[in-house]
Amino acid sequence: MTKEQIADGFSGLQEHICKNLNVLDEIAVFSSDDWQRAGGGGGTTRTIKEGAYIEKGGVAFSKVHGPVTQKMSEQLKLSGKDFFATGVSVVLHSRNVTHPIIHMNVRYFEIDSETYWFGGGIDLTPIYINKESAKNFHIQLKQLCDRYDKTMYPEFKKWADRYFHLPHRKENRGVGGIFFDQLVANDAMTKQKVFQFCIDLGQLFPRLYADQLNHADHTITNENANRWQLLRRSRYVEFNLLHDRGTKFGIYSGGRTESILMSMPPLAKWEYNYVPNPGTPEYETQLLLQREVDWVNL
Amino acid sequence: MTKEQIADGFSGLQEHICKNLNVLDEIAVFSSDDWQRAGGGGGTTRTIKEGAYIEKGGVAFSKVHGPVTQKMSEQLKLSGKDFFATGVSVVLHSRNVTHPIIHMNVRYFEIDSETYWFGGGIDLTPIYINKESAKNFHIQLKQLCDRYDKTMYPEFKKWADRYFHLPHRKENRGVGGIFFDQLVANDAMTKQKVFQFCIDLGQLFPRLYADQLNHADHTITNENANRWQLLRRSRYVEFNLLHDRGTKFGIYSGGRTESILMSMPPLAKWEYNYVPNPGTPEYETQLLLQREVDWVNL
Repeated sequence: MTKEQIADGFSGLQEHICKNLNVLDEIAVFSSDDWQRAGGGGGTTRTIKEGAYIEKGGVAFSKVHGPVTQKMSEQLKLSGKDFFATGVSVVLHSRNVTHPIIHMNVRYFEIDSETYWFGGGIDLTPIYINKESAKNFHIQLKQLCDRYDKTMYPEFKKWADRYFHLPHRKENRGVGGIFFDQLVANDAMTKQKVFQFCIDLGQLFPRLYADQLNHADHTITNENANRWQLLRRSRYVEFNLLHDRGTKFGIYSGGRTESILMSMPPLAKWEYNYVPNPGTPEYETQLLLQREVDWVNL
Repeated sequence: MTKEQIADGFSGLQEHICKNLNVLDEIAVFSSDDWQRAGGGGGTTRTIKEGAYIEKGGVAFSKVHGPVTQKMSEQLKLSGKDFFATGVSVVLHSRNVTHPIIHMNVRYFEIDSETYWFGGGIDLTPIYINKESAKNFHIQLKQLCDRYDKTMYPEFKKWADRYFHLPHRKENRGVGGIFFDQLVANDAMTKQKVFQFCIDLGQLFPRLYADQLNHADHTITNENANRWQLLRRSRYVEFNLLHDRGTKFGIYSGGRTESILMSMPPLAKWEYNYVPNPGTPEYETQLLLQREVDWVNL
């Protein structure tokens, strides 16, 4: 598999996801921007806004290359002279408080046309955790992984628990999902198969989002829920700007800022030392975010 | 001067600033939280909310010490075994769009009880730049610096221009101010005098804030201005979480998260690729943020 074939596959995946999201949310406004990177390469950012369900989001494809700069080697611990990177990244901020924020990303790296690896992940950030729908989300991820290798889900699930975590808040971003990095061909899987796993994950994405939508209760709207949603979104901002490697890679590799930060929520709120009252739904969610949960066997 | 004397001086400065802000904004709600740091030391965070002018803000004092961890030496490039740090930090988010966000910070570091340095800075982030009031702000900073050494203002002003800058947006955070770091005694200034400069800057702060208030036009409220304020605040979030060294130091040294992130705005908005229309006041401010301006001689 060449890097061009992989980039083409990812570009097709972007198209697939957008088409399916448009079917789910017919009134959402989709826009597309092509951009070039000064150092080499570019991408297409497709943004979504003002939907019935999707308040703000985007599906970004990029294919960039060039010399590994000092900033990149320092901040991203990349060694080598030249890099190539291609990937698809999705973040959707849902309008309703019972419809989670969702993120998915698959990516491919090459250094000096010799070393390569795949990475990716998906995770769900509910405003209020619905245990049944979190379990369902994880079961589907496990089924996907199990089709490739039974060891993958347990490993990638743990990786997501470690990765989608805010150490400065001592809490998880949401109910996790799967995360993987530095994935290469091995005895059990060819490079083609690792690529196919990424594509399968991407194609599963709109179905997972539809499932979350089916679990959502669109009748819930009140001042408390609205405030809690804005506070949870500010945690999302903190994770992405303080910890997320994809955001850092984008910023430090001279990527297009508007495309990288399409992951930001439409509106976010910070209150000093907000602590939910025991017994409230906000408190229950907060408690669950401070634990590692085996969702599949819940 | 011992580190204890310096910490006491900074603690007194926190008190001075809070008292004066309370006179300026009588209805604002002031709260105080004492906290301990697991690794050694602690602080007092005084927060402000729901004022007539100050929508959300805080004046934080901290005095922390302990071993230099691996994370600190990696992320903050600190070498040595033990550190001591004390400082005062203020961020005020103003309610009105013609009343800027303001930040001030003074700090003192010691490594292994041998090496020491002072640092600090102040900068103004208007939602709409008022040239006259930006000029007045800089003139007062120059007068303060000139009382110590005529070389300080030009140097510290340039440093602020470089520091309070968002490279990923190719724009400044606001109209700048002064910034200094690694300041030690030299032929012209004793350690006592460097400390006094920090105290003087801190004591000037409430007067500078009062001046900004006098320049504010409290009659301006409209949907455009409100949207622009929320968009500017999201840039403030980006600066603090992506670039600010004080925030990074706090997070990576195991500081108290709520105290560090008291700098966050009450509410912030992200829109994909928002570009102000030429000829609008938003456009004029955006243009000025992309330039280096010699405010004193404007």
